[in-house]
Amino acid sequence: MNVSLSELANRVQGVVVGNAQISISALSPIDDVLVGSLVFADGEHNLRRAEQSKAAAILVNQQMTSSQKSVIQVANPLKTFIQLLNFFYPVSKPKASIHPTAVIAEDVTLGNNISIGPFVIIESSTTIGDNCVIKGHVSIGNEVTIGHDTVIHPQVTIYAQTRIGSRVSIHASSVIGCDGFGYTFVDDQHLKIPHVGHVVIGDDVEIGANTVIDRATLGATVIGEGTKIDNLVQIAHSVKLGKHNILCAFTGIAGSSVSGNHVIFAANVGVSDHVQIDDGVILAARAGVPPKKHLKKGNVYLGNPARPKEKALEQELAVTRIPMMRKKIKGLSEKISLLSERLAQIEAEK
Amino acid sequence: MNVSLSELANRVQGVVVGNAQISISALSPIDDVLVGSLVFADGEHNLRRAEQSKAAAILVNQQMTSSQKSVIQVANPLKTFIQLLNFFYPVSKPKASIHPTAVIAEDVTLGNNISIGPFVIIESSTTIGDNCVIKGHVSIGNEVTIGHDTVIHPQVTIYAQTRIGSRVSIHASSVIGCDGFGYTFVDDQHLKIPHVGHVVIGDDVEIGANTVIDRATLGATVIGEGTKIDNLVQIAHSVKLGKHNILCAFTGIAGSSVSGNHVIFAANVGVSDHVQIDDGVILAARAGVPPKKHLKKGNVYLGNPARPKEKALEQELAVTRIPMMRKKIKGLSEKISLLSERLAQIEAEK
Amino acid sequence: MNVSLSELANRVQGVVVGNAQISISALSPIDDVLVGSLVFADGEHNLRRAEQSKAAAILVNQQMTSSQKSVIQVANPLKTFIQLLNFFYPVSKPKASIHPTAVIAEDVTLGNNISIGPFVIIESSTTIGDNCVIKGHVSIGNEVTIGHDTVIHPQVTIYAQTRIGSRVSIHASSVIGCDGFGYTFVDDQHLKIPHVGHVVIGDDVEIGANTVIDRATLGATVIGEGTKIDNLVQIAHSVKLGKHNILCAFTGIAGSSVSGNHVIFAANVGVSDHVQIDDGVILAARAGVPPKKHLKKGNVYLGNPARPKEKALEQELAVTRIPMMRKKIKGLSEKISLLSERLAQIEAEK
Repeated sequence: MNVSLSELANRVQGVVVGNAQISISALSPIDDVLVGSLVFADGEHNLRRAEQSKAAAILVNQQMTSSQKSVIQVANPLKTFIQLLNFFYPVSKPKASIHPTAVIAEDVTLGNNISIGPFVIIESSTTIGDNCVIKGHVSIGNEVTIGHDTVIHPQVTIYAQTRIGSRVSIHASSVIGCDGFGYTFVDDQHLKIPHVGHVVIGDDVEIGANTVIDRATLGATVIGEGTKIDNLVQIAHSVKLGKHNILCAFTGIAGSSVSGNHVIFAANVGVSDHVQIDDGVILAARAGVPPKKHLKKGNVYLGNPARPKEKALEQELAVTRIPMMRKKIKGLSEKISLLSERLAQIEAEK
Repeated sequence: MNVSLSELANRVQGVVVGNAQISISALSPIDDVLVGSLVFADGEHNLRRAEQSKAAAILVNQQMTSSQKSVIQVANPLKTFIQLLNFFYPVSKPKASIHPTAVIAEDVTLGNNISIGPFVIIESSTTIGDNCVIKGHVSIGNEVTIGHDTVIHPQVTIYAQTRIGSRVSIHASSVIGCDGFGYTFVDDQHLKIPHVGHVVIGDDVEIGANTVIDRATLGATVIGEGTKIDNLVQIAHSVKLGKHNILCAFTGIAGSSVSGNHVIFAANVGVSDHVQIDDGVILAARAGVPPKKHLKKGNVYLGNPARPKEKALEQELAVTRIPMMRKKIKGLSEKISLLSERLAQIEAEK
Repeated sequence: MNVSLSELANRVQGVVVGNAQISISALSPIDDVLVGSLVFADGEHNLRRAEQSKAAAILVNQQMTSSQKSVIQVANPLKTFIQLLNFFYPVSKPKASIHPTAVIAEDVTLGNNISIGPFVIIESSTTIGDNCVIKGHVSIGNEVTIGHDTVIHPQVTIYAQTRIGSRVSIHASSVIGCDGFGYTFVDDQHLKIPHVGHVVIGDDVEIGANTVIDRATLGATVIGEGTKIDNLVQIAHSVKLGKHNILCAFTGIAGSSVSGNHVIFAANVGVSDHVQIDDGVILAARAGVPPKKHLKKGNVYLGNPARPKEKALEQELAVTRIPMMRKKIKGLSEKISLLSERLAQIEAEK
């Protein structure tokens, strides 16, 4: 594909500063720039890198320009870059078809324009909406419902009774709706608590690979609409996540914890059971939240146990001051000895 | 289903306080109560919530009662709730049958009353006991033995020579018996140590989804009977876990470590290699145990590096005292200056 | 198999000290010794254990000997043990054959002597080299290339455009090339950044079970040759790992971070985005590296946030000194009170 800079600028309501006739053949990331490509530069540092690269032109915000290369200026360069990614590298949706090897129960309800790959299993009483793509080796249990335009990648397992919204994406080998981890200790053994609840996943949710979402003991484990979940995340039984949350890899949320909307869990955050997290809370990487805590609206939490950012940083800083404090204590001790000697002298002279 | 409170009470040797004729149509969790349901309340706080809910009646212990709603009193309400869950929501076992798409080696030995789903692979010389359920897409290698009444969920991989007990449950996409992670650095490269051992899983073990248990280098990696393992857990080569352990999500046990019976690993516990853990030890969430440590019987360990609870809490508390200590040091310094001035005055007056 | 100690010694260029005619029937790990076996003992402690075991003989280095049992002395006992493991327990490669249930696109290019298991899916324009083993249920997307002598274990998913080298091994349920976790927050929602890059895996790489490697946003996520990755590891979009790295379980590397050669990530290491790690760096278990850090050549890093070992240990030690410091402060305070009293006495006497 070869497109002139002016055509690209028109496509994204941008302004060319420089040579509008330059031909662009690809998009590039800043750390691996292709000859003749358009590269997106956020910030001065990356602008310098872009200028010294083989890029043909640079996508920047409306405040930035370049004396070295032609640029397209736009209001939101990352949003524009996404538009251009979709233009240069359009996703090819598989053709609607049901592979003959798929094992689909007779009473399954399938919408229009669905693609089902080889070796898919769909069990009894399940419903799948229009335009869904179910890739090979996916296993879907009884009484599952899936909305429209949802994509399920290979090897995913969806246990019985799970309810999945529209425009959801679930990556390979993730598991939705397996039993929660609940036992009670009776007669020297761990007696299993049956898990007869289910999982509800809202519209526009995305779930990474090898992630696990447990069914509720009773009722539902809920993932709110628009929430994005990374690879290797664990959501325990009866958790209720709000809308538009972000959960990065290795985050684990224990049983019955609840989050509001727009909560961010950075990587490897551990939330214990029965925690309540208000709207807009940010949990920094590796934060650990003890059971039954209430994290307050809009706060940033750090550390294990997690504390509001200011307190956590204060404490971190405090530890670095210990060597200085030891020196001071030693200094004071010496001063006191000197004072004591001077005093003894005076007392002796009396 | 509609059952009178008195019938339920009889079924569980409980005592009704209130109206025994009330009709119960479901069980409810405390955070999502259905109209007309029986809800289980542990503790006063949840009793109040239950009283203000749409529940028809409440399951409580023998010390609790309610002025608002009818209750069933029993000795162990959680154990009773499990009984009632099994009564209201009986698990329907799949019918015994072998799906025609399954690829089963000729010399495999199958017990009676076995259910094998679509696209299952069972390789040579493997033996599976009576009443087992092998769901779709499961892959079982050569010379595996599985006891009776064991359930293997979809997409599980069981490598060759694994030995699995009876009444075991393994959830979706877990991997049992892959090579351990062992190399030795020779000639500037990591030379692989072959893993010719296997995995032995005792009776009544449960394993969550996306968990991995490595085979031993030589000999066996062992999971003791009754031990329960959550999702996304890692058990390395040659580990030997005792009986009735609990391992929560993201716990990792490194090579050759050994646990006794009734050990609890809370979430995201990391145990290094060659650690010895005595009976009844509890490792709190996010504890990290350095190599070759010996954790003593009945102790609770916290922190990274893990320390006995008292020491760990003492240290955590110590850090919070630093600001106060800095103030005190400053105060002492000022007092010393004053003393020094007073002393200088006296010395000058001599 | 029964082999004399002298024959084994010849096979590995070792020297027998003791009875060279002893017959060896197996190899044993030090913690589970079989009668009549050869056991490998590293260090004095394990030599004592080996002497008291049922082992017939002991493999040791050239400095060690035993008054209790016959030994084979070699220059590098672990390397020799690997040789002997391969001799006693040779790996049987599956016969070259393509299972009739496999669904392979017409334009796939297959080398010679390939083994493809049941229910494998290989999509369009993919190329697989000589002597590869693709086990059952593996899913391989479009335009993938795989070198020769590579083994892909069951249930692995390889997304489109992934490039895999020769002599690579990928264990069960791992996922290579799924979308990275990238969004930008626009109009109160998380807008997905398309991931049109791919993954490149070098020769001689090994990847454990349930591990995930994300494709790059644009360009490539790269795993350098000879790098070994454990189970349950997360490699994010556009990461570039050098050669001969070691990544233990639960390690996560966030977007665009780069490592040199011979870097070691112990278990549960978390590396944030845009981190640069020089050759030979060692990250201790549970180290956490903040964004954009530069870890310097040959250093060992500990803690969260990760610090050079000396600093981290100094800080850890500092915390343990707080109780002692509090005592000292109290002592100084008392001394000051006494001085003040003595001074007051003198002042009063003036």
